[in-house]
Amino acid sequence: MSNITAAIMITGNEILSGRTQDKNVNYIAKELSSMGIELLEVRIIADIKEMIVDTVNELRKKYTYVFSTGGIGPTHDDITAECIAEAFGVKNVLNNDAFMILEKYYGKENLTEGRLRMAHIPETAGLIENSASGAPGFYIENVYVLAGVPYIMQAMFNSLKPTLTRGEEFISKTLEVKLPESYIANVFADLQKEYPDIKMGSYPFQDGKIWGTHLVLRGTNIVEIEKAYNKLELEVKKIEERK
Amino acid sequence: MSNITAAIMITGNEILSGRTQDKNVNYIAKELSSMGIELLEVRIIADIKEMIVDTVNELRKKYTYVFSTGGIGPTHDDITAECIAEAFGVKNVLNNDAFMILEKYYGKENLTEGRLRMAHIPETAGLIENSASGAPGFYIENVYVLAGVPYIMQAMFNSLKPTLTRGEEFISKTLEVKLPESYIANVFADLQKEYPDIKMGSYPFQDGKIWGTHLVLRGTNIVEIEKAYNKLELEVKKIEERK
Repeated sequence: MSNITAAIMITGNEILSGRTQDKNVNYIAKELSSMGIELLEVRIIADIKEMIVDTVNELRKKYTYVFSTGGIGPTHDDITAECIAEAFGVKNVLNNDAFMILEKYYGKENLTEGRLRMAHIPETAGLIENSASGAPGFYIENVYVLAGVPYIMQAMFNSLKPTLTRGEEFISKTLEVKLPESYIANVFADLQKEYPDIKMGSYPFQDGKIWGTHLVLRGTNIVEIEKAYNKLELEVKKIEERK
Repeated sequence: MSNITAAIMITGNEILSGRTQDKNVNYIAKELSSMGIELLEVRIIADIKEMIVDTVNELRKKYTYVFSTGGIGPTHDDITAECIAEAFGVKNVLNNDAFMILEKYYGKENLTEGRLRMAHIPETAGLIENSASGAPGFYIENVYVLAGVPYIMQAMFNSLKPTLTRGEEFISKTLEVKLPESYIANVFADLQKEYPDIKMGSYPFQDGKIWGTHLVLRGTNIVEIEKAYNKLELEVKKIEERK
């Protein structure tokens, strides 16, 4: 649909162990969707150097944008920056601008070794402003490297957002049907054949004892979506009346 | 750590568009963790045939177990079964046992085309019982194919759980420190060097105006973890006293 695509890479042993429920995917997904950027893949991987390097190298070649969250803090388990540097074949070095930001934020006397670690980024990378907690994120080519803590990640995303190329805006219409999805499967499949450019998804839900279905039509052509939606509504009414 | 590993594959346009917040990763992650099975990777991918086939084939060779959620319902966008069949190079056929389960659940007269679709699974697959809503999941070799709706997925997971091989149990101890993580970064890095077999993670949190850190030690050797934890507690106390 869109010609602008994206992937998210989340490094996080804490998510893979079940300790933490990820919230970053949903935030970034909504933001990208509103910009007409099509998120096609998310990978949540362990904090293992080779995995991070390989994953970045695979994703950055496949998609317009890659967003990485997690692993850029001050502790030894924060290895994302050095992995990204290795993926791009560049050095992970002390960045002067990042150093000055941290010096200003913490004060010269409080620049611990751990904090200085956060001023080390791949040598060809640019900084991403962090209005929430000082230490910046960074980007290198089409890879954007953000913090893992949700509100810091969001602050970084907001500052990089204006630099992204928007795609064609997605329009999404949802028809709520008070029938299990198996009842409308045929009609919906026929509609998909008639409108191959619209992404049609069927999502069951339960409301008390009633099983219902959300039928979602998503695409970039509002006229086609309206036409398909109206037809679907009509067909579903016929089925409901027959019941 | 563990020699039993796993990956999760989630097919879900609704998660990638931001419409739905995934909850299945966290559930499966906790279950696997409690069984000593190490979850190393999660992939959330679009409902695109080639992506699903390629992802299954990559993951099933890398990990002991692969758990797939989503895409096995009655509508045209439910393409997981046919993709899994293609990944294994077998046919997707009407399964007699699945047919009988659905016939019993819905009644003969209500076996719509959509519902019959749910009785089609790869020809060499076995069924996974679904005590929540009838239509079964299935497994083929080391790949377990479950529903996307959380409570149905959980019912299926519970019925397959006893068939999984357990790994060495993980033990996890968390020290809560009322200091930003940059203050304990050095001590924590030294401890990691001393105990390379323990996975040590540092996770910042905010409680009102206080920044704190959860230091997590995770591994399979309780004696080593206790030793490392006690040492960490002592070192952190020293840092707190110096403040």
